[in-house]
Amino acid sequence: MSASVVKVGLLGVGTVGGGVLKTIRSQQQKLSDRLGRRVEVVKALVRNAEKQRSVPIENNLITTRFEEVLASDVDIVVEVMGGVEPTYGYVRALIEKGCHIVTANKELLAKHGTELVRLANRHGVQLAYEASVAGGIPILGVLRQFLRTNDIVSVSGILNGTTNYILTRMEQEKLPYAEVLKQAQELGYAEADPASDVEGWDALYKTYILAQLVFGESLPLHAAERQGIEKLHLGQIGLARELGYRIKLLAKASKAGGGLQLSVRPTLLPLDHPLAQVQDAYNAVQVSGNIVGDLLFMGKGAGELPTASAVVEDLAYLLTQRFTPQPVWQESEPAGNREAGEKRCFCYLESKALRGTPDQVTHFLDRAGVLVEKQRIQYDWASVLRIGMIASGFAEEHKKALHRDFGIRAEVFPVL
Amino acid sequence: MSASVVKVGLLGVGTVGGGVLKTIRSQQQKLSDRLGRRVEVVKALVRNAEKQRSVPIENNLITTRFEEVLASDVDIVVEVMGGVEPTYGYVRALIEKGCHIVTANKELLAKHGTELVRLANRHGVQLAYEASVAGGIPILGVLRQFLRTNDIVSVSGILNGTTNYILTRMEQEKLPYAEVLKQAQELGYAEADPASDVEGWDALYKTYILAQLVFGESLPLHAAERQGIEKLHLGQIGLARELGYRIKLLAKASKAGGGLQLSVRPTLLPLDHPLAQVQDAYNAVQVSGNIVGDLLFMGKGAGELPTASAVVEDLAYLLTQRFTPQPVWQESEPAGNREAGEKRCFCYLESKALRGTPDQVTHFLDRAGVLVEKQRIQYDWASVLRIGMIASGFAEEHKKALHRDFGIRAEVFPVL
Ligand SMILES: NC(=O)c1ccc[n+]([C@@H]2O[C@H](COP(=O)([O-])OP(=O)(O)OC[C@H]3O[C@@H](n4cnc5c(N)ncnc54)[C@H](OP(=O)(O)O)[C@@H]3O)[C@@H](O)[C@H]2O)c1
Ligand SMILES: NC(=O)c1ccc[n+]([C@@H]2O[C@H](COP(=O)([O-])OP(=O)(O)OC[C@H]3O[C@@H](n4cnc5c(N)ncnc54)[C@H](OP(=O)(O)O)[C@@H]3O)[C@@H](O)[C@H]2O)c1
Repeated sequence: MSASVVKVGLLGVGTVGGGVLKTIRSQQQKLSDRLGRRVEVVKALVRNAEKQRSVPIENNLITTRFEEVLASDVDIVVEVMGGVEPTYGYVRALIEKGCHIVTANKELLAKHGTELVRLANRHGVQLAYEASVAGGIPILGVLRQFLRTNDIVSVSGILNGTTNYILTRMEQEKLPYAEVLKQAQELGYAEADPASDVEGWDALYKTYILAQLVFGESLPLHAAERQGIEKLHLGQIGLARELGYRIKLLAKASKAGGGLQLSVRPTLLPLDHPLAQVQDAYNAVQVSGNIVGDLLFMGKGAGELPTASAVVEDLAYLLTQRFTPQPVWQESEPAGNREAGEKRCFCYLESKALRGTPDQVTHFLDRAGVLVEKQRIQYDWASVLRIGMIASGFAEEHKKALHRDFGIRAEVFPVL
Repeated sequence: MSASVVKVGLLGVGTVGGGVLKTIRSQQQKLSDRLGRRVEVVKALVRNAEKQRSVPIENNLITTRFEEVLASDVDIVVEVMGGVEPTYGYVRALIEKGCHIVTANKELLAKHGTELVRLANRHGVQLAYEASVAGGIPILGVLRQFLRTNDIVSVSGILNGTTNYILTRMEQEKLPYAEVLKQAQELGYAEADPASDVEGWDALYKTYILAQLVFGESLPLHAAERQGIEKLHLGQIGLARELGYRIKLLAKASKAGGGLQLSVRPTLLPLDHPLAQVQDAYNAVQVSGNIVGDLLFMGKGAGELPTASAVVEDLAYLLTQRFTPQPVWQESEPAGNREAGEKRCFCYLESKALRGTPDQVTHFLDRAGVLVEKQRIQYDWASVLRIGMIASGFAEEHKKALHRDFGIRAEVFPVL
């Protein structure tokens, strides 16, 4: 690297890229005090060179041709364009050229991290990705540096701000999913195509990355349990609430007797659980270590500046470290079968035309050996029944029988 | 240091020291995988060699003479004996001999940190103290490594588990301070001599250390605002609650126009503020950065294993780093006068024999220009009056007048 300047290339000048530019400028003094060198953006790749940007940027820095970035003398490239293609190819080419990479791209890492880590190690460059998980919260750094003596039992959390925002609004304003989603899109809290967020993919990518850091391995994405929030409705949220719980899209990576497990699922948290207090677009990560116990980290998981903070902190940190290869990423197929039948869960039963009476339903469950700890029943004489219950021993066969005998649809959610 | 073993000395084998011993043993494999060397405790100083310990320890390791520790070939010493004398002299001697130090002793650091940091730098040894602030939460590491590009505006939090436990019990069980303190002592949540905790000293020591890390300087302890919880009573807690707030012992270090400020004070937090959710013996630290926004870190702030976790993580981390001098600690006298009169505060007015009527009191405040945002009045005809109000413009002169004219005692607490 040149003696007095760190030359930075940017792939993407959108929400995060714009924030990175602003941050490098506003924090320039601090950066150069720490690094002993100025940090300068020397090339920035975009799709559309004519687009008006929220942050002023010299015309001669902007390019739409990746080859120009590759040919420039950048020391380090910040990848904030997102997506897998053509991004993966670009990042590979830069690593092969000897550039350090800082990325916020969880999808790329969850899909090609194993190859990228190996490649970066081979070429002696750093691949840094703090911003890819939980935005401004420095959770990866903490796991990597300050919790390595602990055996980490699990990492769980609220890793997607969009869905947490939607769930918060649904509960507080008693508005249905579709309406809240529309509002969230208008306010910029959700993308035009919300699939990656609401279907749980985004949270799963982050969980995948956390597992690599904490357990040294992850599951292929297809082997994780993933359920989004698209089908959640106010009936479920309301009954859960009456039972003393809040539904959150909980992401979890854990390793126990049955091997590594990754899941992203709408989950009931007791109202006084710290993760249940995390509202709106905030993220939070809970780490359980065998010595330290439970730690909780909370902050803005997305947005221009919080994400840019993680990118620029990562970049500065990386420049103060000597290169050491990072542990390789590994994927292993899940060890055994998942446990059949949920232990303790929230069962939501609904029928628009009940055949029978609520009493008959609860008797059936009782005889079938389902242990109900707590329940709320809503029933009106037009035969619309809703039951929310915290129960153990509810299995697939009960679901089928309820449908066959009573015309009830049952859905099951985990309870923390 | 010897090639295959890290030789550790312990000063103190009490609550934390016992936890450190257990952790070094249970996590030995992880430690030696990471460090490439076994970690072995080779000497342990105690006061009473005959005492039964909760953790088995070979007799020949135990000593009651510090000189034996100093004469042994330890590479690194864990100071978990506490107090300032004779600890300060011991730590100085060890540093001068070239030993690295890991300490959990916030009092020592707040009183002699400036000298110890300088001495450690001079002798090229590391002085590590993650465990001294917020127990198992790796807040110092995060501030030092992962938030250095941000301008930190303030660090605040609940840094003392004992007082938070007492306040939680007082509120939940409506029991007076003295009774809860007694229970806390019986349960081991409070020391036989609780002064350092309940008077706010312990939290202030930690705040002092946080300020050194974040702002590169701190105030002499006498220049900080410090108020404990010994005089809090249920009347205040109850009225605050009715107004939508919870009283917490809030510690804060901030730097703004008026220079550096340190304070530890019972403070009203809105019930939905993340720090208001921190109950029992938990600690939490909130960091506000100009780029990242607010981050919250929560976990066990004390206790055998959480504190030992911080000690052992610190020790392992230190052994993987090359020595670089740490920024010197500085103390500066406060810049100007503190602002007179609280801006927006909680005023608690009480009279056991009111001269006048509640109406006359509120009229007086109104005429005096005190702006009341919200209030709750409790009055019975035996002339016992309690008023809780969130107000602005309440000053010392009003306090005096209320006492003179109405026989009212007024107390003022900050509101977040
Ligand atoms: N937004 C957040 O809060 C957030 C938080 C954490 C992580 N992330 C991650 O950060 C990355 C960027 O997110 P973002 O919200 O900043 O995205 P964005 O606003 O859509 O910006 C993407 C930028 O990349 C450019 N770009 C996209 N595809 C390109 C291509 N094929 N060739 C050249 N330029 C291309 C775009 O150019 P034009 O401007 O010309 O269209 C734009 O400047 C993603 O991986 C995302 O998952 C985002
Ligand atoms: N306890 C916590 O949860 C916690 C959390 C964070 C930080 N800390 C800090 O950690 C330190 C230790 O706390 P602790 O709770 O472990 O204390 P502790 O249980 O009272 O243990 C103190 C140990 O030091 C030994 N000791 C004390 N004075 C001595 C002297 N003058 N000469 C030789 N040995 C002496 C004692 O010996 P004997 O056993 O023979 O009496 C005992 O083994 C303190 O600085 C405290 O502030 C504690």
